[in-house]
Amino acid sequence: MNITVALPDDAMLARLRPTVDTDVDLVVWRAGDEPIGRVIDLLVIPYVVTYDALTQLAGEVRYVQSQSLGYDGAANFVPHGVAFCNAVGVHEAPTAELALTLVLASQRGWPEVARNQAAENWERPAYPGLIGRRVLLVGVGGIGREVEKRMAGFGATLTRVARTARNDIHSVDELPALLPEADIVIIAVPLSDETRGLVNAAFLDQLPGGALLVNVSRGSIVDTDALVERVRSGALRSALDVFDPEPLPAGHPLWSLPGSLVSPHLGGNVLSMLDRIDPLVVEQIGLLRQGLPPKHIVIDKGPAQ
Amino acid sequence: MNITVALPDDAMLARLRPTVDTDVDLVVWRAGDEPIGRVIDLLVIPYVVTYDALTQLAGEVRYVQSQSLGYDGAANFVPHGVAFCNAVGVHEAPTAELALTLVLASQRGWPEVARNQAAENWERPAYPGLIGRRVLLVGVGGIGREVEKRMAGFGATLTRVARTARNDIHSVDELPALLPEADIVIIAVPLSDETRGLVNAAFLDQLPGGALLVNVSRGSIVDTDALVERVRSGALRSALDVFDPEPLPAGHPLWSLPGSLVSPHLGGNVLSMLDRIDPLVVEQIGLLRQGLPPKHIVIDKGPAQ
Repeated sequence: MNITVALPDDAMLARLRPTVDTDVDLVVWRAGDEPIGRVIDLLVIPYVVTYDALTQLAGEVRYVQSQSLGYDGAANFVPHGVAFCNAVGVHEAPTAELALTLVLASQRGWPEVARNQAAENWERPAYPGLIGRRVLLVGVGGIGREVEKRMAGFGATLTRVARTARNDIHSVDELPALLPEADIVIIAVPLSDETRGLVNAAFLDQLPGGALLVNVSRGSIVDTDALVERVRSGALRSALDVFDPEPLPAGHPLWSLPGSLVSPHLGGNVLSMLDRIDPLVVEQIGLLRQGLPPKHIVIDKGPAQ
Repeated sequence: MNITVALPDDAMLARLRPTVDTDVDLVVWRAGDEPIGRVIDLLVIPYVVTYDALTQLAGEVRYVQSQSLGYDGAANFVPHGVAFCNAVGVHEAPTAELALTLVLASQRGWPEVARNQAAENWERPAYPGLIGRRVLLVGVGGIGREVEKRMAGFGATLTRVARTARNDIHSVDELPALLPEADIVIIAVPLSDETRGLVNAAFLDQLPGGALLVNVSRGSIVDTDALVERVRSGALRSALDVFDPEPLPAGHPLWSLPGSLVSPHLGGNVLSMLDRIDPLVVEQIGLLRQGLPPKHIVIDKGPAQ
């Protein structure tokens, strides 16, 4: 079946053109551009993007392929008649890798060690490290599973929390009992109405003094003001990849508080991302050419009305 | 058997006194202090220390317990009649943990990300990450094994190198064939006449462009000037915990080169070190009280002459 696929930029076109059959119509086009006069079977949207332009796609596009795993907010903009796919399998591993990077760096003295390097100052602060520490992993989806794999060799104790309890996974309802026993909390749940503000003042106040909060999910899962207050007082440390708002504005206290490590939403942002997003798009094209729906449809409001 | 044990400071005395039988004579004493009028069966020396004062111990001390794993240079100062034990089991795991910290931080953009934090600058550099990278681990002793455990979950390819080949471990003679295939090299061999200067200009020039050198062993295994030249040109990146000389002097280019991550000899320097050094000292005391030699004797020149 001949299909039309719109890609966000010439770079992706150049990468995919040699690997896709010549009868697949590949164009560079973005939501909001002039219509091209035929239906776009698959629209790949840019990696970091707002979703508001998607409202215009009814009748023009059949499927939208996002390059992100999270799709909070997208349902407000995806019109009837257009289905939306997220990028399962692309970012879970590098995001988990970043979570471990943040855990290890914080537990071994960064950002203090980085400040000492900048000042050319040989000081040897002793930090807790990860060996023997009690890690609470909130979220056991794709990212959580990848965190678990990477955490396995470090001699830490891992406790897992999900929406509902199962096997040796605890439910979020048990958090009040679990938080006082956690040296490190890693947030790896998707943003939803349930998880927005999950890490609020009450959550934070149940952690023992000096505990570390790591967030690689979405900024608004954390009450930023409540966290800032506790990092400022030294009660907690934080190592965050995601913020509310993003970009984190200059002058925000999280940039400069001694116990705050800031990573600017680098979760999936590794050079090897292309090794995973390109094959996903090629796979989706293959399904569409066979007349099948693409994988990972997460928003579908039904036919245009 | 009643024995006398000298500890380096009041802090260790306070920690050990409650766990050691009251008939063990515990004193705070360091090499160079006035003799105490009886033979010291076990002298625990400070964690970071030079060995020159050990020359004076003949006739005063039977065994020296170091708090370090490496003991390069100590044999020049340990007199006949005194045996020297290193701290096996105390630092391997945290040093390996630091090696992973350095690998991950560098592969995900530190020190650039740290500089951006200091400048309150939201930029999102893409770095190679660790997934799919080829890691060459030089050294398969205690630290190397702990690195291997921790590396297992990260989706990297690990190749191991030791003095002599065995099973799927390569020999150092194979380095010229292995280095061009390595994205990351981790140095975890003890310093010896064989390993001093092992990482010289020829070694470094066999690495592919942009490769990362991590050293958690001893600084003089690396030719620092040769490394600096290649980090300055951008040919290589480095993440070092050990330097030649140490402390790294202010003004040294490794403090400020963009591709250089500096950790001030933090390998074993974690708060949990006490959880491992104290039990080792207690175990050594137990052996001595039974009339047995302590464990981990690495220097013993025979009886006083």
